[in-house]
Amino acid sequence: MRVSVFRKEHFNAAHRLHNSEWTAEKNHIVFGKCNNPNYHGHNYELIVKVIGEVDPNTGYVYDMKKLSDLIKVQVLDRFDHKNLNLDTEEFKELNPTAENIAIVIYDLLRAKIDKALDLKITLYETERNFVEYPV
Amino acid sequence: MRVSVFRKEHFNAAHRLHNSEWTAEKNHIVFGKCNNPNYHGHNYELIVKVIGEVDPNTGYVYDMKKLSDLIKVQVLDRFDHKNLNLDTEEFKELNPTAENIAIVIYDLLRAKIDKALDLKITLYETERNFVEYPV
Amino acid sequence: MRVSVFRKEHFNAAHRLHNSEWTAEKNHIVFGKCNNPNYHGHNYELIVKVIGEVDPNTGYVYDMKKLSDLIKVQVLDRFDHKNLNLDTEEFKELNPTAENIAIVIYDLLRAKIDKALDLKITLYETERNFVEYPV
Amino acid sequence: MRVSVFRKEHFNAAHRLHNSEWTAEKNHIVFGKCNNPNYHGHNYELIVKVIGEVDPNTGYVYDMKKLSDLIKVQVLDRFDHKNLNLDTEEFKELNPTAENIAIVIYDLLRAKIDKALDLKITLYETERNFVEYPV
Amino acid sequence: MRVSVFRKEHFNAAHRLHNSEWTAEKNHIVFGKCNNPNYHGHNYELIVKVIGEVDPNTGYVYDMKKLSDLIKVQVLDRFDHKNLNLDTEEFKELNPTAENIAIVIYDLLRAKIDKALDLKITLYETERNFVEYPV
Amino acid sequence: MRVSVFRKEHFNAAHRLHNSEWTAEKNHIVFGKCNNPNYHGHNYELIVKVIGEVDPNTGYVYDMKKLSDLIKVQVLDRFDHKNLNLDTEEFKELNPTAENIAIVIYDLLRAKIDKALDLKITLYETERNFVEYPV
Repeated sequence: MRVSVFRKEHFNAAHRLHNSEWTAEKNHIVFGKCNNPNYHGHNYELIVKVIGEVDPNTGYVYDMKKLSDLIKVQVLDRFDHKNLNLDTEEFKELNPTAENIAIVIYDLLRAKIDKALDLKITLYETERNFVEYPV
Repeated sequence: MRVSVFRKEHFNAAHRLHNSEWTAEKNHIVFGKCNNPNYHGHNYELIVKVIGEVDPNTGYVYDMKKLSDLIKVQVLDRFDHKNLNLDTEEFKELNPTAENIAIVIYDLLRAKIDKALDLKITLYETERNFVEYPV
Repeated sequence: MRVSVFRKEHFNAAHRLHNSEWTAEKNHIVFGKCNNPNYHGHNYELIVKVIGEVDPNTGYVYDMKKLSDLIKVQVLDRFDHKNLNLDTEEFKELNPTAENIAIVIYDLLRAKIDKALDLKITLYETERNFVEYPV
Repeated sequence: MRVSVFRKEHFNAAHRLHNSEWTAEKNHIVFGKCNNPNYHGHNYELIVKVIGEVDPNTGYVYDMKKLSDLIKVQVLDRFDHKNLNLDTEEFKELNPTAENIAIVIYDLLRAKIDKALDLKITLYETERNFVEYPV
Repeated sequence: MRVSVFRKEHFNAAHRLHNSEWTAEKNHIVFGKCNNPNYHGHNYELIVKVIGEVDPNTGYVYDMKKLSDLIKVQVLDRFDHKNLNLDTEEFKELNPTAENIAIVIYDLLRAKIDKALDLKITLYETERNFVEYPV
Repeated sequence: MRVSVFRKEHFNAAHRLHNSEWTAEKNHIVFGKCNNPNYHGHNYELIVKVIGEVDPNTGYVYDMKKLSDLIKVQVLDRFDHKNLNLDTEEFKELNPTAENIAIVIYDLLRAKIDKALDLKITLYETERNFVEYPV
């Protein structure tokens, strides 16, 4: 009786897309407005999916309150109301595209969730642009 | 030419999370506010996914009007504006978590849909908490 | 420079529509499925609108964090995960229709917000049924 | 490091469901209101999912601006503000059900996207009826 | 104790914007893609607002089930799955812009709702374009 | 025949709430996480409401394409993918709260729209926090 359970959270952050090994011109060509030196920002909507067996005693795969608390400690306290490029260790060297943010969030949560449970991250950068990891 | 088709419906119900083999104290610790003895409730959003071949005569996998009617008879007439714990056979002994409700809805619909078609249930308990079955 | 500011919150509750001065038959005719004796429930979405002058020092009409905290204490702690008919003083005698819930919430918040500020409540009982007070 | 990236776009179109090999009566029985001879219409919401490796230089699987431009040229310029049955080559003979529209859009985009990338189409005909291809 | 109550419904229709007193060229300049001779279409989302006193016996301003039924008979049966220009009396001579559709719906409902109640129509032509009448 | 018409657009920006006449400590106490020196950001959803007479020749109050173009030139080109504090003239001295951004957008559009038409701005900073101006 494996079921997927999902918890949606959100955080607001500033970021800039930039490859420090490229010229300013190449960065501008590749990343366009997202390369703005003074940053721009987003309301990130995050959906965390946990897949596992339903516990017959609780009827839960994972307590949603505990999942929400875990996301708060591991993700929101780290990224909410932050500048991803300047204020976080994770994106000091890594370009904070939605793809990379999703992978980083996956790794942060994967380390804290029982390996018997599978995990997937969906991250909305805008209502029209979003990503999932793993596929 | 297999395509997935989805139909979204909703129902409103009261429920209480409770394990009758546990003490009141343990129930309160595990289920928190969801254990309130007088029940609380939700607007459940239900998405039924049916996967199958496109019929070349109709261009349909499944007639959405018939799927809507089937969901009405099998799910909404049974659970809409009901107290899941008190008013339904299905949850007299089974804890009405979102996980268990999704499994019950799957079984109700699975019995009425051609086995050549695959079936998946997504159930939103709130905008921020939802489940899928099977995974 | 008067501006309206809005804060959206939500709570989940069970309720039953019922007029204790009417017969069971009349209650059933008037309130239909909403009269179910064992209750049903909703995810209530609440939008609180506060209208006032922008403070030139802060650029705020009302600190949204403080408004959220006020709604939590006055509304969510009172109604969230409750049975409105059984668990609350406000609806022991008052029929918990969306109209009446909005008026009650207005009165609870009106008593705690500076009279120089105007106040309006929008309450969604479902995505398709909602109310505003005052008009 | 395979990630799925999604781009949401929309178009508005008129259509009619009809099988030219059937009698008017049979068409009416099978397709109901959707068979209206003078057409009806929809706001189609389209989600294009592209699955592939994250480019370590950009942090992108696929540049969302380029994906949006590709969808504009291949899909929106072809179907937006059109009568699918009368104004398009693709649905002159093919019944424009959501299933068939999704397959046609998949084929149009598949031809223009590197085969190393996987592709999936989600098409909302209404908020309550939608399809995915491939499954 | 005046409260506003709202009911949301939807219908799907085809239409074409056109002024029959203008040349084809002028119609094309003014209405652009919306002038397509073979029509296009929309999922119209309709919100009907009724403003009045709360009945102390019911706690209702207006029974939402009755309002939904009234909208079905007066609006949906008339416009749903129709071509507004060809299939309706109302838009045979009147250009079916969102503004005009809202005014027509207002007049249809105004004739059937007690004059002690005020009425307002909100009509979404797309998620990004919508209108209200009266102001 | 006055009707309100609405156009929804969006932009993404970084900002920081800060009063330069206050100490760092007071700024932190008043603005909390929103005072982060390296900025954070939002997906701003903007709804522009224009109120006026329906033109009998077009059935329009205001051509939505022209309104969208006007918003693009006056608002999006100025604020989209920008740091409001650093990259714009408007917020060099003015604290970029949602209230102030709405007033600034109102003034920018008011100067370009015929005075016979009324204007109102709704600005969503997040799904849960939004403002309207004028009231």
